[in-house]
Amino acid sequence: MNDVPDYTPPKVWTWDQANGGKFANINRPISGPTHEKTLPIGQHPLQLYSLATPNGQKVTILLEELLALGHNAEYDAWLIKIGDGDQFGSGFVDVNPNSKIPALMDRSGPKPIRVFESGAIILYLAEKFGAFLPKDDTRGECLSWLFWQMGSAPYLGGGFGHFYAYAPTKIGYAIDRFAMEVKRQLDVLDRQLANNEFIAGNTYTIADIAIWPWYGGLAQGWLYDGAEFLSVQDYKHLQRWTKQIGARPAVRRGRMVNRTSGDPASQLHERHAASDFETRTQDKLQP
Amino acid sequence: MNDVPDYTPPKVWTWDQANGGKFANINRPISGPTHEKTLPIGQHPLQLYSLATPNGQKVTILLEELLALGHNAEYDAWLIKIGDGDQFGSGFVDVNPNSKIPALMDRSGPKPIRVFESGAIILYLAEKFGAFLPKDDTRGECLSWLFWQMGSAPYLGGGFGHFYAYAPTKIGYAIDRFAMEVKRQLDVLDRQLANNEFIAGNTYTIADIAIWPWYGGLAQGWLYDGAEFLSVQDYKHLQRWTKQIGARPAVRRGRMVNRTSGDPASQLHERHAASDFETRTQDKLQP
Repeated sequence: MNDVPDYTPPKVWTWDQANGGKFANINRPISGPTHEKTLPIGQHPLQLYSLATPNGQKVTILLEELLALGHNAEYDAWLIKIGDGDQFGSGFVDVNPNSKIPALMDRSGPKPIRVFESGAIILYLAEKFGAFLPKDDTRGECLSWLFWQMGSAPYLGGGFGHFYAYAPTKIGYAIDRFAMEVKRQLDVLDRQLANNEFIAGNTYTIADIAIWPWYGGLAQGWLYDGAEFLSVQDYKHLQRWTKQIGARPAVRRGRMVNRTSGDPASQLHERHAASDFETRTQDKLQP
Repeated sequence: MNDVPDYTPPKVWTWDQANGGKFANINRPISGPTHEKTLPIGQHPLQLYSLATPNGQKVTILLEELLALGHNAEYDAWLIKIGDGDQFGSGFVDVNPNSKIPALMDRSGPKPIRVFESGAIILYLAEKFGAFLPKDDTRGECLSWLFWQMGSAPYLGGGFGHFYAYAPTKIGYAIDRFAMEVKRQLDVLDRQLANNEFIAGNTYTIADIAIWPWYGGLAQGWLYDGAEFLSVQDYKHLQRWTKQIGARPAVRRGRMVNRTSGDPASQLHERHAASDFETRTQDKLQP
């Protein structure tokens, strides 16, 4: 496991385009657009440009929850194929200069407002509609766990997921480092959920919506084929919560939006109206 | 650079305590307290438990900025020595179950409120005092960059910093992966700051306060000895903004709080009153 030869970095890093692993074609050391491309705009005030990764799911789950509560959160969800480089089109970069999904344009006011970063989008929407974000003395707890997810998941996705599942060679030190951290994170959640029905206490909030697609996905074996390696079944309270959240109809709908893999009946490539779900078989979604 | 032997992970990950690098003693795959220890409580409503890492600095900079504006944001800042494992004491874990600094207890109301994760703390304080967080149509932009920092810095700290500066062996693939991402992030900021005085536009906000300790620190060569390797001098607009923010008196004070390294005159191990700074020589702080 320590059998890694030492390496001497150069004085100044330079871009070696041959060495990037599975996502070499979309990882770059520079930002900005690579090509001109305008984004489509639908009829609803909220225009979402996304893909059904865990970060993408956060937003569509919240939007479906808001609609289920009766809020006027109608939206158009457009597909951004990150494997094809859609996130580097000029129109997308105008909405998110960081070239990551999801990105939102709120066209409900006199001036369009862009919001990027999944955590910012769900906080922005929760504030806008006054839902799933406590106004009482549990607001601090909800914000803490919302930000916990944002600061923690890079170790799960960009760390563990990359080195365990995607990197061109398996590097024992890196896999070990990130596996240890992810197991610690799973234990943090498990202890919190031992004493609380939801992440931030007695109420379902955007903290649950932020954490579920990542850590609920991992707990159910949907991410990186890492369930056995990380012994996810040991985290009993996390497992209880994962199933409870996953059974919510809005969560099941939200997971389908902008989905391009798995059972075709679970894929709704674009979403423009509530009726778009009717031709799909939500029950075919895992589990 | 590709000279890394392939490794076959076991079916189930287990904890090898001999293999953690510089921070092996504080990285664990489980959470929760390791020992009983109550936290001190001072006389002010806000009790901060922290250390002057970039995440710690965000909060003390904001508190000093709030005080400079005339808000009643008086606070006690207590030192948490993470190298000694203070973050695993039972009292600290009660405030932050994730065992990371900074952690805040707001004792101003009838019931103490805990807030953890630096991004959550500065958002909570900005909301509480109604400052450094726009209420107009630039709020979405401010939130987007605040969350951008939270989702991006793990690639700088836990990724680049770890593999470039701290890991027991230099692994070329990992250094290259994270150097490329950090350079992309620097370019994202540089382009944003080419057209905007501050991160979120014309106004100094918590987005600047979140990003400056990390990316401003990197731009000035304070982090990981990585300035030459990452060619930080090339990001001209980031450099302009870094100097501009760093010259603010509240930023200079905030950087001193809970600092335990560098020039002794720049170190204020604990902060309990504004007068605590008077015996220190702020001008001795870099630059």
